[in-house]
Amino acid sequence: MTRFKEPFPGYDQRIRQSFELQRIMNTLGATLTKVEPGRVEIELPFRKDLSQQHGFLHAGAITTIVDSACGYAAYSLMPEEAEVLAVEFKVNFLAPALGEKFLAVGEVFKAGKTLTIARGDVTALQADGSSRQVAAMQSTIMNVRGRVDATP
Amino acid sequence: MTRFKEPFPGYDQRIRQSFELQRIMNTLGATLTKVEPGRVEIELPFRKDLSQQHGFLHAGAITTIVDSACGYAAYSLMPEEAEVLAVEFKVNFLAPALGEKFLAVGEVFKAGKTLTIARGDVTALQADGSSRQVAAMQSTIMNVRGRVDATP
Amino acid sequence: MTRFKEPFPGYDQRIRQSFELQRIMNTLGATLTKVEPGRVEIELPFRKDLSQQHGFLHAGAITTIVDSACGYAAYSLMPEEAEVLAVEFKVNFLAPALGEKFLAVGEVFKAGKTLTIARGDVTALQADGSSRQVAAMQSTIMNVRGRVDATP
Amino acid sequence: MTRFKEPFPGYDQRIRQSFELQRIMNTLGATLTKVEPGRVEIELPFRKDLSQQHGFLHAGAITTIVDSACGYAAYSLMPEEAEVLAVEFKVNFLAPALGEKFLAVGEVFKAGKTLTIARGDVTALQADGSSRQVAAMQSTIMNVRGRVDATP
Repeated sequence: MTRFKEPFPGYDQRIRQSFELQRIMNTLGATLTKVEPGRVEIELPFRKDLSQQHGFLHAGAITTIVDSACGYAAYSLMPEEAEVLAVEFKVNFLAPALGEKFLAVGEVFKAGKTLTIARGDVTALQADGSSRQVAAMQSTIMNVRGRVDATP
Repeated sequence: MTRFKEPFPGYDQRIRQSFELQRIMNTLGATLTKVEPGRVEIELPFRKDLSQQHGFLHAGAITTIVDSACGYAAYSLMPEEAEVLAVEFKVNFLAPALGEKFLAVGEVFKAGKTLTIARGDVTALQADGSSRQVAAMQSTIMNVRGRVDATP
Repeated sequence: MTRFKEPFPGYDQRIRQSFELQRIMNTLGATLTKVEPGRVEIELPFRKDLSQQHGFLHAGAITTIVDSACGYAAYSLMPEEAEVLAVEFKVNFLAPALGEKFLAVGEVFKAGKTLTIARGDVTALQADGSSRQVAAMQSTIMNVRGRVDATP
Repeated sequence: MTRFKEPFPGYDQRIRQSFELQRIMNTLGATLTKVEPGRVEIELPFRKDLSQQHGFLHAGAITTIVDSACGYAAYSLMPEEAEVLAVEFKVNFLAPALGEKFLAVGEVFKAGKTLTIARGDVTALQADGSSRQVAAMQSTIMNVRGRVDATP
């Protein structure tokens, strides 16, 4: 991790407002729990109706929260006029997603002019206080100025 | 794409039953629309409550359906006693996910003894009949015998 | 694969000249064997001094030729004033890289304004005429105008 | 990073011997500079005959050393009877590969029974002592018992 330049004032407020607009977060039951320059946390309590066939949290739900955590980590360091766009990501699944709650942490690894690289981890937290990492993401995010509905 | 050996009788029924157990599919509104040896299709109608901040379908919802399509494509070629586990995937997002309906197609690229490689595409279908590819996945799936709740 | 707009006249000559400047190609013994709009082929005869510990071609040598094949496939569709930069790639290794010769094919999957997505395959060709795919790449390439030594 | 169980005695010697057999390392001029449980370093001095078209170190050369660093980091934690096989990796390129020397560090992130996940970084070291990270890898490695020339 390198140090980053100071975000613009209100960068965290912008992320909280954008998160509210990500309506899938409310649908899944995810909440934005921490916003820092270059680092964002999102939590998702386990729910049976988000499971895959063996009763674990579906890889897609895990990916959804860590993608947003990485995207917002990138967004936290972008200039005020920029918008954020997911270019691509890769996720490894390290262990079955069993737990009471899942914590996704996204961290900027390299903030470039056009592209930002982030790494994200998801940890399963158990009722007894134990925890285990279940997923690891490496992600590329684009800094877009102007229309976000255009093709990258 | 190579040709595959014949799946065991009832391979498609096994996939349909497993899909029913993926409760996130019902929560998102996704349906399993086609099952063939080495190839599976899943459809997801657009819903506002699955959106990201600009009103497009969230990358996580796109990933969820194409991950399952690739996983079941792999599963369709596995022996009867095997279970399927997502090892990792990479997704590129090609265009904003705007559309009436999203079609995820997963295809096996290489079926190995322990690991299967699949490629998946997601296409946005518009009300006027036009379509556009919005995502491309490359995925590694593991053939697990016995306990699926163990660490790979 | 979608169809692409016509490249500028001399696009293939530009790629051949650039390939000559990729001095690692000569060091490894790779040659550029085909250039078409959105599709490029590179061949590498097996050499013992490019092996890994079991005598197969090293994954890094495989990656080197398919990365260049994908990069030049992207370059073939870019405007005359643009330069090409590797953003990231993912490669799956499908089988041990045993063979007399290796053929890397890179194809553009989606040519965007700033970013191009390509897929690449590497096939091992045997002396007896048989062949087997050994690697599959999915790659993101950036269209850079001006200084290529800047950070993306 | 989690802690790992103690490797078998002579694990480091096994890696040094295997590295000697990776003949591409000698061809490129790379050396194995550090071996620890779960962590391996490889260095590559810049050479003009390993360049891409703008004179930077080719992405393929960068990938070659960090792939081996990750693979040997995984190997360091495997049982004596196991062999190591590259399943797949993803690499982001963060900055132009300009430098006097390149240091690849591979670290195990999660050591599983069959699959190990590693992360690798490549740093460009300048003659004046400054440095800059140029690449980041996330990699899946398989623990193979018996024949390594079989298909995974």
